[in-house]
Amino acid sequence: MKILVINSGSSTIKYQLIEMPNQAVIAKGLIERIGSKEAKITFQKGDFKTHKVLDIPDHQTGLAQINQLLMDDQIGVIANKDDIEVVGHRVVHGGKSFSKTAKVTQNVKEAIKSLSALAPLHNPHNLKGIEVAENVFTKAQQVVVFDTAFFQSMPQKAYQYAIPKHLMEEHDIRAYGFHGTSHKYVSEKAKTFLEAKNGSASKLITIHLGNGCSITALKDGLAIDHSLGFGPANGLIMGTRAGDIDQSVIFYLINQLGYSADEVNELLLKESGMLGLTGHNDMRDIQKKAEEGDKNCQLALDMNAYRIKKYIGAYAAALNGLDAIVFTAGIGENSALLRELVCKDMDVLGLELDTTKNGKHSAEINEISTAHSKAKILVIPTNEELEIAKQAFEITSK
Amino acid sequence: MKILVINSGSSTIKYQLIEMPNQAVIAKGLIERIGSKEAKITFQKGDFKTHKVLDIPDHQTGLAQINQLLMDDQIGVIANKDDIEVVGHRVVHGGKSFSKTAKVTQNVKEAIKSLSALAPLHNPHNLKGIEVAENVFTKAQQVVVFDTAFFQSMPQKAYQYAIPKHLMEEHDIRAYGFHGTSHKYVSEKAKTFLEAKNGSASKLITIHLGNGCSITALKDGLAIDHSLGFGPANGLIMGTRAGDIDQSVIFYLINQLGYSADEVNELLLKESGMLGLTGHNDMRDIQKKAEEGDKNCQLALDMNAYRIKKYIGAYAAALNGLDAIVFTAGIGENSALLRELVCKDMDVLGLELDTTKNGKHSAEINEISTAHSKAKILVIPTNEELEIAKQAFEITSK
Repeated sequence: MKILVINSGSSTIKYQLIEMPNQAVIAKGLIERIGSKEAKITFQKGDFKTHKVLDIPDHQTGLAQINQLLMDDQIGVIANKDDIEVVGHRVVHGGKSFSKTAKVTQNVKEAIKSLSALAPLHNPHNLKGIEVAENVFTKAQQVVVFDTAFFQSMPQKAYQYAIPKHLMEEHDIRAYGFHGTSHKYVSEKAKTFLEAKNGSASKLITIHLGNGCSITALKDGLAIDHSLGFGPANGLIMGTRAGDIDQSVIFYLINQLGYSADEVNELLLKESGMLGLTGHNDMRDIQKKAEEGDKNCQLALDMNAYRIKKYIGAYAAALNGLDAIVFTAGIGENSALLRELVCKDMDVLGLELDTTKNGKHSAEINEISTAHSKAKILVIPTNEELEIAKQAFEITSK
Repeated sequence: MKILVINSGSSTIKYQLIEMPNQAVIAKGLIERIGSKEAKITFQKGDFKTHKVLDIPDHQTGLAQINQLLMDDQIGVIANKDDIEVVGHRVVHGGKSFSKTAKVTQNVKEAIKSLSALAPLHNPHNLKGIEVAENVFTKAQQVVVFDTAFFQSMPQKAYQYAIPKHLMEEHDIRAYGFHGTSHKYVSEKAKTFLEAKNGSASKLITIHLGNGCSITALKDGLAIDHSLGFGPANGLIMGTRAGDIDQSVIFYLINQLGYSADEVNELLLKESGMLGLTGHNDMRDIQKKAEEGDKNCQLALDMNAYRIKKYIGAYAAALNGLDAIVFTAGIGENSALLRELVCKDMDVLGLELDTTKNGKHSAEINEISTAHSKAKILVIPTNEELEIAKQAFEITSK
């Protein structure tokens, strides 16, 4: 079964065509700058890569272009667009209604639309992607995979905030969580890996460090706590986002320093995090500068690792134990330095890093703890598109 | 040496007259409703208690009334006001300038005033108390003990926020911490207690649960991290304060639900926490209702304990170990139920509660862990006034 996975943003569409159940990526690519006369579309199959720059006024045209490339006489990979039996869409916010992947119906689309207030930067574009795909791939079953669904297993004491309870009851203000497909994917990989070696995988912590960063505590495969909550701002220190911050700072900026609420929100989302601390957004630049003796960069790395370290401790307490931690996503997979800073001096939780193994890069699962480390340390490359394809395959082949 | 300890609020003055170094409380009391014609002043020496209701238009009159009671022919405890050699004042905010107790000078008073922007509800009244005491007790040495001073030992990675660094450099926006005298007092008590039994006290966590709540990680007697930061709002769930909350909630309340920033601030400080979750502010009422089957009250207790549990885990990771945790202040000393919820299922950190010992109340240090618990669990009554007297004595008897 050929499944087209689509992740639709305000001016972008990421796509992957995946053959299931054998999980082979047939082709993949990205459209950027939708709405521009100089939009860019990339296409890759195996080692072959190409791109073109053209006028793509809207998402409909974008998806038609993707379809055209997939069916191209020269470089195409399918003969007929109806060869695509399923289109799997990433949808950021499923609110409290969706605890699993769903086939698209009118009701589902209305629910996604009604959740736009909770995810104004994502849900409207995700919905647009679905509607456009329905027009282009008329025979395909449309499926939605929600970022938030994986966290619906969290207990109430973890997802509720200590604010007047009518705000949750009437306005759905509670923690939802994000990066669910990534945390689900790597936690299942970790479970299979650990159990194959007769290890326990009952108490896991998965650490997604990419553009956005988040950390999840899992008990027997189910999320029980997570660092992102109502929005995409909280928890770990990210590229430009502050993560956890004392709310008193927000009111001080507004009341004493004359910021508007919107300006503070922008500041915390776009000018903070590693960028705010160092002037740099790219972790590789920050590490390089730290090695060259830049104190701000070294401090920012220390703060970043310290925040992660504290979350690991908090979640180990919540789980009352720890079998393994898993690093994933761009920074988690590639920054040996950050992993080392996080895992240093953590024998209280049974974590012992093998620095030699940590220094080696692997495209597969890399176990980087020492042989006698009580809790294991794993690096697992994430694959959100494959996770979406897996879930879309599962729900449509039942 | 007789030391008068003063804690001056907007319409209150708490006082204690303490004989040092033997730490005997000679007399103590409280004035409430300063500015009212029906202000109330209480006075207690040993078992003897009295109070009167009278017109106290301002702090100057209030302190004169205290002085009059202390020197009263019938019930007084001193013959001459100059018997009071030192007045020790609690001052909430010492900013980054004060890492220890200080004798009052013109410079010190100006610094306290200039820090009023950071603690507008406290510093101006604390300063008023100092100025009035200078007028009334003209011969006494005035000493200030800062709530924040104890936390000046925190490393930068713990006190800095991941926001543009100029906000710290130019506007002093960073974590300061509060309840410092309480955390210092009970941590020193714990150290003496544990070391007398040949135990280690290198890695401690002190948990102050009163009207305000906070938790401190201490390495070798020095604070290395703390849950209250720039203001008094963050961290643990308090009586009416939310503690940690995703900043996205704040902007949602403002942008989507039409709250003003001030309304959100008020909501998070005065209508949230245990009150917001249950409709009740008093922990005893909440426990009683939970026992009677009230689900909101049970959930609020579970949330409260879960938050503390996660901070203990985070700080144990920061310390890379744990010798003991200490519960203190009104709720910490009296709520066996909350202590039990916190310590349950925490053997990952070597904590094992003896529920029988936990159920017994003690006016002294109560060790409530089992004999073989790797990390100890202590209940230690706090005494901020005595801590202020100790520090005032130390600095003036050098």
